[in-house]
Amino acid sequence: MTHKTSDIKGVKELIDICVGKGMEYVVISPGSRNAPLSISLARDNRIQTPVIVDERSAGYFALGIAQQTGKPVGLVCTSGTALLNYAPAVAEAFYQRLPLVVLSADRPQEWIGQDDSQAINQVNVLQNFVKASYHLPIVTDGTDDLWSLNRMMNEALSKSISGRLGPVHINIPFREPLYGEKNKEGESERIINKIVANEVLSNEIKEALVQEWRSSSKVLILAGLLPKNEKLNACLSQLAKFKQVVVLTESISNLNDQAFLPCIDRVITSFSAKEAEVFQPDLLINFGGPLVSKKIKSFLRENPPEKHWFVGKEDKLIDTFKALSSHIDIAPENFFEEILPLLSNHESTYADDWKKRDRACDLAHEDYLKNTKWSDLKAFESVLGAIPDGANLQLANSSVVRYAQLFKTSPNLLYNSNRGTSGIDGCTSTAVGACHVNDKITTLITGDISFFYDTNGLWNKYLSNRLKIVLINNGGGGIFRFIPGPSDAPELEEYFETVQEYRADKLAETYGLDYFYADSLEALENSLPDFFKLGEKACILELKTPRELNDVVLKDYFKNLRK
Amino acid sequence: MTHKTSDIKGVKELIDICVGKGMEYVVISPGSRNAPLSISLARDNRIQTPVIVDERSAGYFALGIAQQTGKPVGLVCTSGTALLNYAPAVAEAFYQRLPLVVLSADRPQEWIGQDDSQAINQVNVLQNFVKASYHLPIVTDGTDDLWSLNRMMNEALSKSISGRLGPVHINIPFREPLYGEKNKEGESERIINKIVANEVLSNEIKEALVQEWRSSSKVLILAGLLPKNEKLNACLSQLAKFKQVVVLTESISNLNDQAFLPCIDRVITSFSAKEAEVFQPDLLINFGGPLVSKKIKSFLRENPPEKHWFVGKEDKLIDTFKALSSHIDIAPENFFEEILPLLSNHESTYADDWKKRDRACDLAHEDYLKNTKWSDLKAFESVLGAIPDGANLQLANSSVVRYAQLFKTSPNLLYNSNRGTSGIDGCTSTAVGACHVNDKITTLITGDISFFYDTNGLWNKYLSNRLKIVLINNGGGGIFRFIPGPSDAPELEEYFETVQEYRADKLAETYGLDYFYADSLEALENSLPDFFKLGEKACILELKTPRELNDVVLKDYFKNLRK
Repeated sequence: MTHKTSDIKGVKELIDICVGKGMEYVVISPGSRNAPLSISLARDNRIQTPVIVDERSAGYFALGIAQQTGKPVGLVCTSGTALLNYAPAVAEAFYQRLPLVVLSADRPQEWIGQDDSQAINQVNVLQNFVKASYHLPIVTDGTDDLWSLNRMMNEALSKSISGRLGPVHINIPFREPLYGEKNKEGESERIINKIVANEVLSNEIKEALVQEWRSSSKVLILAGLLPKNEKLNACLSQLAKFKQVVVLTESISNLNDQAFLPCIDRVITSFSAKEAEVFQPDLLINFGGPLVSKKIKSFLRENPPEKHWFVGKEDKLIDTFKALSSHIDIAPENFFEEILPLLSNHESTYADDWKKRDRACDLAHEDYLKNTKWSDLKAFESVLGAIPDGANLQLANSSVVRYAQLFKTSPNLLYNSNRGTSGIDGCTSTAVGACHVNDKITTLITGDISFFYDTNGLWNKYLSNRLKIVLINNGGGGIFRFIPGPSDAPELEEYFETVQEYRADKLAETYGLDYFYADSLEALENSLPDFFKLGEKACILELKTPRELNDVVLKDYFKNLRK
Repeated sequence: MTHKTSDIKGVKELIDICVGKGMEYVVISPGSRNAPLSISLARDNRIQTPVIVDERSAGYFALGIAQQTGKPVGLVCTSGTALLNYAPAVAEAFYQRLPLVVLSADRPQEWIGQDDSQAINQVNVLQNFVKASYHLPIVTDGTDDLWSLNRMMNEALSKSISGRLGPVHINIPFREPLYGEKNKEGESERIINKIVANEVLSNEIKEALVQEWRSSSKVLILAGLLPKNEKLNACLSQLAKFKQVVVLTESISNLNDQAFLPCIDRVITSFSAKEAEVFQPDLLINFGGPLVSKKIKSFLRENPPEKHWFVGKEDKLIDTFKALSSHIDIAPENFFEEILPLLSNHESTYADDWKKRDRACDLAHEDYLKNTKWSDLKAFESVLGAIPDGANLQLANSSVVRYAQLFKTSPNLLYNSNRGTSGIDGCTSTAVGACHVNDKITTLITGDISFFYDTNGLWNKYLSNRLKIVLINNGGGGIFRFIPGPSDAPELEEYFETVQEYRADKLAETYGLDYFYADSLEALENSLPDFFKLGEKACILELKTPRELNDVVLKDYFKNLRK
C-alpha cells in the first residue's frame, strides 16, 4: 500500500473509509474534475476500478455488481451532466434496495452558476432516490474539515448497508490544481462501527401474532424481489408443509421448494369470478421488493385478506394491497426464524386447493406449448430449458420478465431483474456488470426495445466470454399489443409498439461479440448448444419472432388456462 | 380540429395552452401512463410529434429543435426512470437558455412508494435545472381543478419563454383507465397573455453608464453563446468602428463582422506576460451564455477590467471574471440599441493593438497549417472549408468546439454547441433534432468519445439526408493528452483518454446511414465533395487521425503563435 495518491486533503481518507466499510469495486467514468479520485483509486490495490465512459451505463453496471455481491459499490464521475446520467440507476437501486455509493466530483460551490464549464448545481440532485445526500467540505488546513468529512463518509457508507439497503450520494467539490500527488502515508482512517442490536420480538407481540395466525385457516405467503436467502428459504419450506399455508413466489424471489408455487400469473388467470372466495386468504404475509405480477396485485386488491403483515426493514408504510394491518419492521429471515417454532399446522384445504389448480395449469401449459408455433412464448420454452445450471439469469423489462414467470423456476439459477422501477434503460449494462463479478454464466434475455435502448452496455472492455445475450427481436415493444388500450388504438405501431426493423448483427461486430441468429424453432434448437458453449467472446443470439402473432399466441395461452 | 382526444379531464385543455403559447413540436417517448397525452397529441394536427424511444436522446433531440426555432418544445414520457433520463438535456437547456417543456406522466400520488411498478417519486426531480416545477391536479369534477390546471400551464409556458429562457417541468398524474376517448369539443381554452413592458433605461442611468464609457480608452466587448441576432449584430458593428473598442466573439456567438475578432484563443496565446497590460481592458462588456475559451477567462481574471458590465436577463449574478460592477438586466440587443446613440469614438490604439496581433496570428496560423501533417488540426481545416453555405454547424464537446475556435468563423453558417453544461452526452441527438427542423444542411463534427456515447441519437426515424456527421476518430478522448495533469499520469490511457479502437462503419449500417472513411488528407479531400452532396440518406464521414500525434501538432501550433 505504498503508492502515490492525490495530494488533495481528504481523498486518501475518504477512500480508506470506503474500503473499511466493505467497498471492493468503484466504477469510474473518465473526466478531469474527478482526477484526484480516479488516480488515487486506480493505484489502490484494495479496490477494483472498471472504467465505463457512459455514466448511465456505468450506473447500471455498478448496480449489477451490487446485486451480485451485496456490498457497497462506488461510482465516480466528473462534474456536470455526468452525475445526472446516474439518476436512472440510482432510482432503480433505491427501489431494488441496493447499496450504490455515488461519489460525484464537483466544482467548488463558489463557481456554481457562474457560467463556467461543466459547473451545474449538483447538490441534492438525487435526493428523491437516495437514503441521504452529503456535500463534503473542501478540506483546507483545519482538522475540523477532516473530522466532518470522516463523520459524513462513515455515516453515508453505514447508511447504504444497514436497514433497508440503498444508495447514497456524496458530492465532492475539488479546487484546482487537481493532479498533484503525494506518498500515501499516515495512520489508517478512523472507521466508525455501526453496531446493530439483534431483532427480538417481545413475547406479548409474538403471542398477538400467533393469535392472528391461529384464527386463519387460509394463509397466503407472498414473496417479492429478493436476493438468494437460504435461511428464509428454509423457514418457508417448513411453513409450506402446513395445510393452511400457500407460498407464492416470483422468479426473482429466488426461493425454491417443490411446495412453493412460482407461476402466479397462470394460476390466477384460471380463477373464475365465483372461485375468488376459495383462494382469497384470511392472512396475507408478504416481504421483498416490488412484485412483477399485476394479476396477484389485482386479485388481492379485489379480494383483500382480513389481515396483512408486511415483513421488512422499511422507513415508510408500503400498502401495496390496501389491506396492511401490521408492518413487522424486521428482516424477514429473522422474523420467520423467531416465530416459526410457535406456528402450527391447521386442518384446511387451502394449500391443496391452490396446488391442485397449479397442477392443472401446469398440464394446460404443457399441453398448449406442445402445439404452439414459433413465437416469443415458444422461444422462451426452448431458451429457459437450455440455460446451464448455476447461471445467473438476467431478465430485461418488461415483457421478458413477465414471460419468464409463466415457466417453473429452477433452483439452480439465480434470477435478477430491474424491478425496482421496471425501467428498460439499463438491463444490458446491469447484466454486463453482474457478469463481471459472477464467475458463472450470465444469461441476459432481452427484448429488442430494451436491447437497443442500452447498446452502450456493450461499449466497454468488460464483456466476458461468460456473457450470453438472448435478444428476442419481435420488431417493437410487443407488450403494447397485449394491453387492451393501445392494441386498439390506431396509434399502436407508431406511438406504443414503436415498430422497428433494426438488427443486432453489426452491433455485435462493432462491440466485439459473437453472433447467432434464429428465426425458427429448429434454427434456435440447433444454435443453443453452440451459443452456450464457453468460447472466447461474449455472444448474442438474436431470435426473430413474428411481431403480429406473438400476442395472439399469448392471449390464446391465457384463454386456454381459463377453460 | 374535430378529432377524438383522451377523455381524461384536463388533457385537451393542457394541449390547447401549449399550442396557444407557441408550441409546435412535442417529442414523445412511448409508454402506457402517458397514453392520454400521446394519443391526443398524435391526432392534433397543430402539433408535430416525433417519437424517440430513448428519453435521454429525446431530451437532446427536443433541445436541438428549441435551439433552431426559439419556441417552446414539449417532451412527453411515461412514469418511472423515463423522466430521469431527461435530466441531462434539461440541465443543458437551463444553462443554454432554451425553452424545453417537460410533460411527464405520473401515477397518482397515492401510489408512490407503494412498490407498484414504474412508480417513483417524480415531484421536483428536475428542480435544480428548471425555472419552475409544477405538479398538476388530477381533475375530478370540480371546476377548481381545471382552473388551477389552466393557471399552472399558462404560468409554466410563459415562464419558459420570457426573461431568461429556460426549461420547466410539469408533472401530470393520471388515474386509470388511460385509454378512453371523447370527441374534441368545447370552447378553446383560456390563454393568459403575458404582457411585458419595453425595456427603457432612465436618463440618469444612461448618463452614468456613458460616463463610465467616456472614461474608458480600452473597451472590450465579449460575446458568449448566442442565437443569431441581427439587431445585436448591427449595433456591435457600429461599435466596432470605434478606435477604443474591440469585439471578441466565439464561433457559437453567431455574430459576424470583418471588424470582430472570432479567434480568441490564438490571439491570447500570443500575449507575452509583459503585454498583458496593453490588452487588459478598462471596461469589459459581456453578454450571452457560457464562454468556450478558457484562455480569455484566465486572462481577464488575471488582468481584470476596472469596470465590467454584464448585459442580460438573469435572476442571479453571474460574475465569471470576479470583476462585475454592473448587471444590466436587459436583453443585450435592446440595451445596445438604446445606448448606442450616446456612445462616442475616442482616440485610442486599443482596437489597432488587438487587430494587428490578430492579423499576425492569422499569418502564423496559415503558415503553420501549410506544413502540418495529417492530424485533427489539419482535418479541421479541410472540413471547415468544405461546409456548404447556409449550413448549421453543430460542434460536439469538447475538443471539437475548441478546435473550431482556432479558425475564422463564416457569416454563412449557424454555429451551435451544447456549451450550457459542456456535456458529451447528447451532441448527436441535438444535431439530429436540429436537422429535423432546419431545412439546410446540418453538419455535426464530433469526436469518437462523444459519438459513441450518443449512438442512440441515430436510433430513430428522423435521420434526414441533410444530416452530415464528421466523426474525428482519434481513438480516445484526445483532449486529455493536451491537459498537463493527465497527460503526465501513467493512468492517461485507461482512466482519462479511454483509448478505444471502435469504428462506426457497422453502426452506420445498423442505423441506415451512408458511410465514408478517410485516414489521410488526400483521402479526406477526395471524399468531401461526395460526402456533402445531397443523397438519399444521412451520412457519416469517419476520419482516422493519429492518436499520439494530434496533441504534438496542437502544442506546436500554440508554441508557434508565441514566437
